[in-house]
Amino acid sequence: MLSPKEIVSKMISNDAFSKWLGINILKLEKGYCKLEMKVVKEMTNGFDIAHGGICYSLADSALAFASNSHGKMALSIETSISHTKKVNIDDTLTAETEELNINPKTGLYNIRITNQNSDEIAFFKGTVFFSDKIWK
Amino acid sequence: MLSPKEIVSKMISNDAFSKWLGINILKLEKGYCKLEMKVVKEMTNGFDIAHGGICYSLADSALAFASNSHGKMALSIETSISHTKKVNIDDTLTAETEELNINPKTGLYNIRITNQNSDEIAFFKGTVFFSDKIWK
Amino acid sequence: MLSPKEIVSKMISNDAFSKWLGINILKLEKGYCKLEMKVVKEMTNGFDIAHGGICYSLADSALAFASNSHGKMALSIETSISHTKKVNIDDTLTAETEELNINPKTGLYNIRITNQNSDEIAFFKGTVFFSDKIWK
Amino acid sequence: MLSPKEIVSKMISNDAFSKWLGINILKLEKGYCKLEMKVVKEMTNGFDIAHGGICYSLADSALAFASNSHGKMALSIETSISHTKKVNIDDTLTAETEELNINPKTGLYNIRITNQNSDEIAFFKGTVFFSDKIWK
Repeated sequence: MLSPKEIVSKMISNDAFSKWLGINILKLEKGYCKLEMKVVKEMTNGFDIAHGGICYSLADSALAFASNSHGKMALSIETSISHTKKVNIDDTLTAETEELNINPKTGLYNIRITNQNSDEIAFFKGTVFFSDKIWK
Repeated sequence: MLSPKEIVSKMISNDAFSKWLGINILKLEKGYCKLEMKVVKEMTNGFDIAHGGICYSLADSALAFASNSHGKMALSIETSISHTKKVNIDDTLTAETEELNINPKTGLYNIRITNQNSDEIAFFKGTVFFSDKIWK
Repeated sequence: MLSPKEIVSKMISNDAFSKWLGINILKLEKGYCKLEMKVVKEMTNGFDIAHGGICYSLADSALAFASNSHGKMALSIETSISHTKKVNIDDTLTAETEELNINPKTGLYNIRITNQNSDEIAFFKGTVFFSDKIWK
Repeated sequence: MLSPKEIVSKMISNDAFSKWLGINILKLEKGYCKLEMKVVKEMTNGFDIAHGGICYSLADSALAFASNSHGKMALSIETSISHTKKVNIDDTLTAETEELNINPKTGLYNIRITNQNSDEIAFFKGTVFFSDKIWK
């Protein structure tokens, strides 16, 4: 069976969108990861702040890495996010996962996103389905 | 007061991320919009399908346009999305809003995303807060 | 394999809480149901309107009946509800399901709750996991 | 302005459904509460375990008490719950709130429900709207 690092390294090597976002893996363990990225002009919306999709994408990548790191291919089935603070150009965002529950078939994760001042800027919750396919 | 088209035109003129996504407005009315975009290589993840953040971003833009079109600046406070079908490169995605409820302070929307074969590929629900700032 | 009516009849025959709520099945088909109940004093909260848990419970029963009616035992894994209008004593509530998506492992449902004046009072979304156990 | 205890005492004195549930307040502070209740036969569903509406109702009461304790009347606008473990008759459930974010208009809370063995049995997230009405 592949290690968490081998699995996520496979995932990210082909992940064009995570590359476009500039996602950087700070920490990775079984069922856990911490990611970082920097907000650039191309990620902003009409209010001159980061588009809601940017934080969601960062959190969704964190969900994918944390849940797949157990060894089975995991698919997101339901996710939600609350945006609590504006995100500006040049902000550095950090997403950290918390595994609330896993069973053989599903997993539940909370992910908090903070900025460079440790302000909490979004709260994400995600449920995944663990398929029978093993990462190799 | 600005018309829905004037408001969304202001929003999108500065929306760098919606431009990057290639979002195209098919239809726009008070409290309603229908958007379209095409999936390109840069939007895919490690599974060679569109990153979950792409559908979310399209739906989140639809939420922003539909809710702001009433004339007050609206802020997303809670959103959720269920991904029900894989999205491939070259797929054309359409997002259509349904306004479930609005009152002076909050609005609730369902958004369905379909592909070029009318397959439903994601279901999004979003709640916004209507601020007191009027678009002008 | 049991029919939808046989399955739900088994479910409801032991469902003490649905009985306490006074839930009445108006219509039942594979993947669909429509339920009704009347709000009584014991279901109200400190604001003298129905406790949020009452609408949730009605919708959750509708989710259980609709999803189990396919023949496999289904378990709710994630549900959300938005309350859009107050519910008063003596109101009659109707919950109707819409099956958005099913695959061998999971199902996604929207449920709308209306009162006797056809006002929409709550919107519920629920995801279930289909186990391998067959109803018999 | 009323204290958190005076506010919640007003709320619960008229809360017929919380009384039916047998909800007991273990701890109460500004923006926080911890509640307890015992599962009885009348709260079970057709699977002979607690109906999903029971945990939701406990968490929804916790959300109401924690958010109203700040002094303004607060209304739930969007809530979600994931059920992660079965709840049996005679189980004692504890719900504890965590205030993730508040601003003048909205508040966001996580609520965890555990049983007498400290097993986590449900995770709830709730967003409230703070009205201009002051508790008195």
